[in-house]
Amino acid sequence: MKLSILGCYSATPRIIAHTTSQVLETRGHLFLIDCGEGTQVELRRHKIKFNQIKHIFISHLHGDHYFGLVGLISTFRLLTRETDLHIYGPKGLKEIITLQLKLSDSWTNFKLIFHVLSSKESELVYEDEKVSVHTIPLDHRVYTNGYLFKEKPFERKLDIQKAEALNIDKAYFRKLKQGADVVNEQGELIANSAVTLEGHQPKSYAFCSDTAYKEDIVPLIKDVDVLYHESTFLEDHEYLCVKTKHSTAKQAAMIALKANTKLLILGHYSTRYGGLEGFKTEAETVFKNVLLAEDGKEFTF
Amino acid sequence: MKLSILGCYSATPRIIAHTTSQVLETRGHLFLIDCGEGTQVELRRHKIKFNQIKHIFISHLHGDHYFGLVGLISTFRLLTRETDLHIYGPKGLKEIITLQLKLSDSWTNFKLIFHVLSSKESELVYEDEKVSVHTIPLDHRVYTNGYLFKEKPFERKLDIQKAEALNIDKAYFRKLKQGADVVNEQGELIANSAVTLEGHQPKSYAFCSDTAYKEDIVPLIKDVDVLYHESTFLEDHEYLCVKTKHSTAKQAAMIALKANTKLLILGHYSTRYGGLEGFKTEAETVFKNVLLAEDGKEFTF
Repeated sequence: MKLSILGCYSATPRIIAHTTSQVLETRGHLFLIDCGEGTQVELRRHKIKFNQIKHIFISHLHGDHYFGLVGLISTFRLLTRETDLHIYGPKGLKEIITLQLKLSDSWTNFKLIFHVLSSKESELVYEDEKVSVHTIPLDHRVYTNGYLFKEKPFERKLDIQKAEALNIDKAYFRKLKQGADVVNEQGELIANSAVTLEGHQPKSYAFCSDTAYKEDIVPLIKDVDVLYHESTFLEDHEYLCVKTKHSTAKQAAMIALKANTKLLILGHYSTRYGGLEGFKTEAETVFKNVLLAEDGKEFTF
Repeated sequence: MKLSILGCYSATPRIIAHTTSQVLETRGHLFLIDCGEGTQVELRRHKIKFNQIKHIFISHLHGDHYFGLVGLISTFRLLTRETDLHIYGPKGLKEIITLQLKLSDSWTNFKLIFHVLSSKESELVYEDEKVSVHTIPLDHRVYTNGYLFKEKPFERKLDIQKAEALNIDKAYFRKLKQGADVVNEQGELIANSAVTLEGHQPKSYAFCSDTAYKEDIVPLIKDVDVLYHESTFLEDHEYLCVKTKHSTAKQAAMIALKANTKLLILGHYSTRYGGLEGFKTEAETVFKNVLLAEDGKEFTF
């Protein structure tokens, strides 16, 4: 998986602090997660082939997470896109987008398919043979979901030379990659393990923003490889978290610890602090593997 | 008047080509004209005291002219603005903005006053003792207005030393500035011209974007000091102007010539051309005083 951070600041876009948007590249997909104002420009800046995006996941209807969506859709239209575009997000998003398309008399040539989310329980919202995406219900001032992206098991790696030496017909190679034992040309049963090795380890990624500290999500994201968890404030401003339903860096780390994630990425910073190191230091008092999201940063895992 | 160009390109925002937005500073006002995606960031970049904006004029509901408006309003809210904000624009704009504020549960603390435009005739939309603003009905694919900003006459410049030498009481100074003759302490009538000089010359500015070539606007903008007129295409692509209801640089210059403007500023360029010089060269075949709008450029007149 490759995660590209386009923006990781809260509230309002500034010259060098973009609001939430990220691209997750996994198994041939480019998933766009949230789409703050100016996202289309950041997609260009970071040379992401954004016309290949087919699925956009919106967490909630605060502007710093979706004000760039209508512009991106309009640009797809101007670029004469024809591929379907699936948009996952709260009730109301479809109305916001379609009202603007209607008033500008700018209907898209491609199908715009809205998947309206309203459940307070986690649900499977996308699945194919390679990946699945579930919602992670969060606790914010308006209806909000995080998203859990899981790769399905990769095929086993076939040692073709060994398979040929054992006189296995090529027609069986696909079955071998899928883990089955097969019969060779002499009619002998060949154990799968004799000619294959374990495939790539499937990875998982959980995006959790925006949310107050919410332990209920721990079972949903248990053992996730990488957790992006918002940390709008530092502990000194915990009272603001209560009021605004955000988390501190320490609270993000507590979720990471309880969920047994391998890596915690912090983001959605308030711009009130001089720099970002304070977020890392605070989180590290609770959980060891902490990295800071920064605009334009890539994480490969 | 000082005109700051925040963005002057058409269609879709790019890294170094922002969509339409400009600020006109006149007689203590900061008027924002159009508000493409990312305008709030450009306002910051160009160090414009944007919290002082009280009036926003939107030409039409194509995204490159207003997608940044909802974000700017949200930022005003986050900055705890209390001053009324007046927004002038086509029917539908109010619905677009209020739907988004409603769904994010983010009502503003300041009054948001929408002035819904629907007339196909020019109308006075704002006036105070120093300036007036009229619409300029344009010809585009959707309902569109340009805006004409006119300064009212400035006060006359009082020569205080002369006035004192002639024994005029200070109580009459205001009247003198307004052009009246007054009586001095000896009861003598003092002609206004004896103690005052003509004040600053009032200026006018017409913003015309987007529009096909439309001669009907000429009487409305006759003798305007500065005309900003869209020139999306060059003459080679005039057939695209017909289809999309835009103008060529030459057509913009013909309007400038007929309107007897002092200066024509071109803008709303398609990004299909290598540079901007072609627009200037083409317009200059018809009209002499042509300047090119560029993102970040300021014009003082």
